[in-house]
Amino acid sequence: MENSRIITLLTDFGLKDPFAGIMKGVIYGINPDAILVDITHDVRPHDILEAALILGSAYHYFPRGTIHLVVVDPGVGSLRRPVLAETKDYCFVAPDNGVLSRIYSDSGFKRVVEITSKEFFLEEVSRTFHGRDIFAPVASWLSKGKEISAFGKEIEDFVKIPIPEPKTLDSHRIKGEIIYVDSFGNLVSNITQSLYDKKAPPSAKGIVINTGPFEIRTIVRSYLEGEKEKASALFNSWGHLEIFVPLKSACKTLNMGKGQEITVAFI
Amino acid sequence: MENSRIITLLTDFGLKDPFAGIMKGVIYGINPDAILVDITHDVRPHDILEAALILGSAYHYFPRGTIHLVVVDPGVGSLRRPVLAETKDYCFVAPDNGVLSRIYSDSGFKRVVEITSKEFFLEEVSRTFHGRDIFAPVASWLSKGKEISAFGKEIEDFVKIPIPEPKTLDSHRIKGEIIYVDSFGNLVSNITQSLYDKKAPPSAKGIVINTGPFEIRTIVRSYLEGEKEKASALFNSWGHLEIFVPLKSACKTLNMGKGQEITVAFI
Amino acid sequence: MENSRIITLLTDFGLKDPFAGIMKGVIYGINPDAILVDITHDVRPHDILEAALILGSAYHYFPRGTIHLVVVDPGVGSLRRPVLAETKDYCFVAPDNGVLSRIYSDSGFKRVVEITSKEFFLEEVSRTFHGRDIFAPVASWLSKGKEISAFGKEIEDFVKIPIPEPKTLDSHRIKGEIIYVDSFGNLVSNITQSLYDKKAPPSAKGIVINTGPFEIRTIVRSYLEGEKEKASALFNSWGHLEIFVPLKSACKTLNMGKGQEITVAFI
Repeated sequence: MENSRIITLLTDFGLKDPFAGIMKGVIYGINPDAILVDITHDVRPHDILEAALILGSAYHYFPRGTIHLVVVDPGVGSLRRPVLAETKDYCFVAPDNGVLSRIYSDSGFKRVVEITSKEFFLEEVSRTFHGRDIFAPVASWLSKGKEISAFGKEIEDFVKIPIPEPKTLDSHRIKGEIIYVDSFGNLVSNITQSLYDKKAPPSAKGIVINTGPFEIRTIVRSYLEGEKEKASALFNSWGHLEIFVPLKSACKTLNMGKGQEITVAFI
Repeated sequence: MENSRIITLLTDFGLKDPFAGIMKGVIYGINPDAILVDITHDVRPHDILEAALILGSAYHYFPRGTIHLVVVDPGVGSLRRPVLAETKDYCFVAPDNGVLSRIYSDSGFKRVVEITSKEFFLEEVSRTFHGRDIFAPVASWLSKGKEISAFGKEIEDFVKIPIPEPKTLDSHRIKGEIIYVDSFGNLVSNITQSLYDKKAPPSAKGIVINTGPFEIRTIVRSYLEGEKEKASALFNSWGHLEIFVPLKSACKTLNMGKGQEITVAFI
Repeated sequence: MENSRIITLLTDFGLKDPFAGIMKGVIYGINPDAILVDITHDVRPHDILEAALILGSAYHYFPRGTIHLVVVDPGVGSLRRPVLAETKDYCFVAPDNGVLSRIYSDSGFKRVVEITSKEFFLEEVSRTFHGRDIFAPVASWLSKGKEISAFGKEIEDFVKIPIPEPKTLDSHRIKGEIIYVDSFGNLVSNITQSLYDKKAPPSAKGIVINTGPFEIRTIVRSYLEGEKEKASALFNSWGHLEIFVPLKSACKTLNMGKGQEITVAFI
């Protein structure tokens, strides 16, 4: 794989503390030519699933050869392993806690390596900040072209976490749930356009989306086509069915959030 | 115009979601040598006026040739056009919704082009995220030196939004309003130093600033010259009359915000 | 000192306003090859001590030659001086208000220079935004290799602020306090591991940490070793004794914050 010098960062460190900045200092100390891009540092603290979903929606928009560094690491200092994953186009450096679960189903997925070669770590490794002491330096060495096999041995028993999957209830109904709320307050479900297209019976004349007390009877194409002040639905920019209220926070207006059930019935 | 490789980003995407990061991934995919600078991603959601004001206060501090990418886009997916504006020193890429209104009165303003050349867009253009699919790639192609005329044809009917302007009440009074509250809680009015200097009668012995229940009788030069715990006034770093309370949030202390009327009387 | 082209930024400007972005525009205008890294822009407004502590925990993780730009500047526009400090490995540009206090005890500390050479400032210097008009351009000129002595004369009476220091109560007790709360809600004290190791009597069989109504009887090594839902203690990634609650905010769970007393007794 060619090397893009780009390293993205995705953490739950927030931006108030210097932790993200410190990781960047460590990276530049090893590779002054790295190009750093923040995906986000505002994952809900310790929320591995949220990090996995955000990563899954973002990683493929980066150039081939990008290294994605993910540090949402509630198990830091325990026995959980640091890992390096490779797909056809990207590398990922992260704790082995499931944060890369979405990557493992990438059609270009190749392998996972346990990071064990201490020569790529900072000299002193703390028990509380592996982002700084292990993950940042490993990502930086990778961005300099170091071979993946130099970091450790391939493993098969890497951790996958269950990502809530939609269910086909019967020939004309899919049940899903809200898995993410974006900062506009839009409610993103786990029902994808490709699943929807596959399940829609050719004879279907319309749909009914049930979610909490709300019923939605059309899927529009853009936010402005939604009915004012009402719950509306569209397939969003990452191909997921999303409940929104035009120019408002659906989360607040509808009082709905993560975990909310949503049913699509073809009629 | 020479090319600085710098692209600034100004959006209402927030920093929790991966949207700003995704735009950067798209930009680097086209021009790996781009230099990216965030102006802010925390414009109040859908607030075109706020974005126009922030852009207006910031764009001229960047090197000649900087490309300013502005995505506050409540009309995404509707018929509103994507545009590219050019001044003597800068390029701007944005939706045609008025977010560039301040630019159109720049003394070096040259022209606005409707972006229509689809070869510069991502292959699949969504109806919900033109920041990623249209604006980011266009800005990136521009930063590689692509000619402005390659993106589309000049238009004259681009959208300007009314920006609240101060009024001259009579020979010795100006009426304005608070148009922006910064994160220190300082209250920024639309009365500029140049208007003030032009309107001040040579015979004026002093001034009275009335704003809500507060009366201010001097304009000081720095924050520390304000009276402790009291409403004070100065011309701020972008040349606007600003109401502040030393080392406190004027917004909270005085319970005032955007839209608050303010009158300056020369006495 | 070699030059790393890296300039870090540490301010209390927040990320909503364009102030940090404007400083970056000014820097790139002078040195297009600068590499900019945010340490944080979310220092509590005007909190010089907090900025000094954050800087102290972060600066040495950057490559040799990094220039650290610190703008927490409640006295902007007053007579407080702009200064430039040099250690063996780094340069610092900041107002002379104590924000560099931690640097002055760095074993490689060399000198402080008052910045007086106006040719390195922006042409017009405001009384309200020296970050833009003085500190950013000076840092940028430095990153281009300009000699430190070109900016002004060495001074000896630079400002140091008192940083709360732990006290040895008697042969077996140290008293400290919480000086920082990170965004996970962890409570960072001013008791360092090196002080702890120096004070621990060889005969000590255990310890008791008293903090508010809580008593902690062990220092664990990683967050996961703490007892669930309970106040626990470890030495954190910057070597300070830290009170935490596993996977929770200790700040909220224990209702404790900055200034809280903490006593370590060796028993």
